Amino acid sequence: MIFIGERINTGFKDIKAAVLDKDADVIRQWAVKQTKAGATYLDVNLGPASNKVEDLCWMIEQTQAASDLPISIDTNKPSMLKEAVPMCKKPPLINSTTAVDEKMDNMFPIVAEHGCSIIGLVMDETGSPKSADKRVENAGKLMAKAMEYGIGPEQIFLDPIMMPLKYMQDQLKEIITACGQFQMFSDPPPHVVCGLSNVANDTLHKKLINRTVAVMMVANGLDAVICDVMDEELVNALLTAELVMNKQIYADSYIQAFRS
Amino acid sequence: MIFIGERINTGFKDIKAAVLDKDADVIRQWAVKQTKAGATYLDVNLGPASNKVEDLCWMIEQTQAASDLPISIDTNKPSMLKEAVPMCKKPPLINSTTAVDEKMDNMFPIVAEHGCSIIGLVMDETGSPKSADKRVENAGKLMAKAMEYGIGPEQIFLDPIMMPLKYMQDQLKEIITACGQFQMFSDPPPHVVCGLSNVANDTLHKKLINRTVAVMMVANGLDAVICDVMDEELVNALLTAELVMNKQIYADSYIQAFRS
Repeated sequence: MIFIGERINTGFKDIKAAVLDKDADVIRQWAVKQTKAGATYLDVNLGPASNKVEDLCWMIEQTQAASDLPISIDTNKPSMLKEAVPMCKKPPLINSTTAVDEKMDNMFPIVAEHGCSIIGLVMDETGSPKSADKRVENAGKLMAKAMEYGIGPEQIFLDPIMMPLKYMQDQLKEIITACGQFQMFSDPPPHVVCGLSNVANDTLHKKLINRTVAVMMVANGLDAVICDVMDEELVNALLTAELVMNKQIYADSYIQAFRS
Repeated sequence: MIFIGERINTGFKDIKAAVLDKDADVIRQWAVKQTKAGATYLDVNLGPASNKVEDLCWMIEQTQAASDLPISIDTNKPSMLKEAVPMCKKPPLINSTTAVDEKMDNMFPIVAEHGCSIIGLVMDETGSPKSADKRVENAGKLMAKAMEYGIGPEQIFLDPIMMPLKYMQDQLKEIITACGQFQMFSDPPPHVVCGLSNVANDTLHKKLINRTVAVMMVANGLDAVICDVMDEELVNALLTAELVMNKQIYADSYIQAFRS
């Protein structure tokens, strides 16, 4: 399982304050904590807190000072990426592009040049798709365009676009079905990723809903997740789901081994 | 979700002792407890504790004295069923037949006559299948033979046959894939059931593995489970998975509502 730690994001108050005050410790502590919890990538998101690329680069710098993990650069602005990508010590994951041609033509050259990976949201000019079929169609556009740039399926993380269970309940089945079909694009298939945080919006049982949806998606090909890696029950459930899919060899101590 | 409470089974020492001593209270207490926990059916299994049909009938009688739930009669002996089925106050679920012709020709007339439902294990003369394809082939035999007897898909519970994760790890993916294909037999599809108890044999994280596997199967069509209905986390996970599949309408209090 590829765990993308979501926490270094100015959507969280402590991170926003740290960026505005240039308080490196807060960033570094979250980098360390998420690394210890088993993250594979650390997502770094400047968000609307600032529009200065220096601030994004500073966040990446602090994160890399505290952790050897590769960075997931959470911006869809090519101008920012052009500065941020070269300063990454390991090939980053770019989060994200959509299936809009202009967007892909801006992003994919950066991916190809630096050997990055990229999250492809299966949305187009018309917005977020409502059906599994439309999600698969947009995923196909992403895959085809990536091929034109010499970007392989192992560099692509298709994101079926999560919807809130409470408000768009019928969408979840479409999302899960789409994940299953993403498997058919290539062998090996592209990665399938989702940003979990929206699914449980405004519900009473957020963590239960998060991990249930995640596990159901693993049954249909999800192999990466942007999530709260400090949520041990979520991580344990995902490790278990991966065993069930035969992607890791079973050992009695599989959970303990992951944490050590 | 159809929860089949597994507890009234002489595999458990207290039930075995109760049957041998004709201690009705033990049976009745488990009937009440499982009913309160939200069971849909109560499985009654005489097992090897006795070969007397009177003992099975006594167990059913005690269960029905304490609960209005329908019974799942856990025997594959037609001679026992012929006495046990007529004493059930509601049409029981028969647990189980295999896809062996002789077996089906003995069991299906009882199902048809009494309007029962029946669990069909997707195994044949050669034993338990190893692949998803063989599971689907055997499921097809069960469905076709049931049709000959006028038994509809809503009366059939296909069981893909659970295997222990620790010893047959590669089987889990085959089982999940088979469940997905069972959906294609008819519209509405047959029920899909599994006996969860084997999957976590000899593992350290039994409950986590049980509920993770169950939820992954729900993503592929499982709608019934023979399980420990007293395991609240398992039941909560399955209720959540069913919401995700859009089979129940979301309400903030969906868990509380189920328990009340």
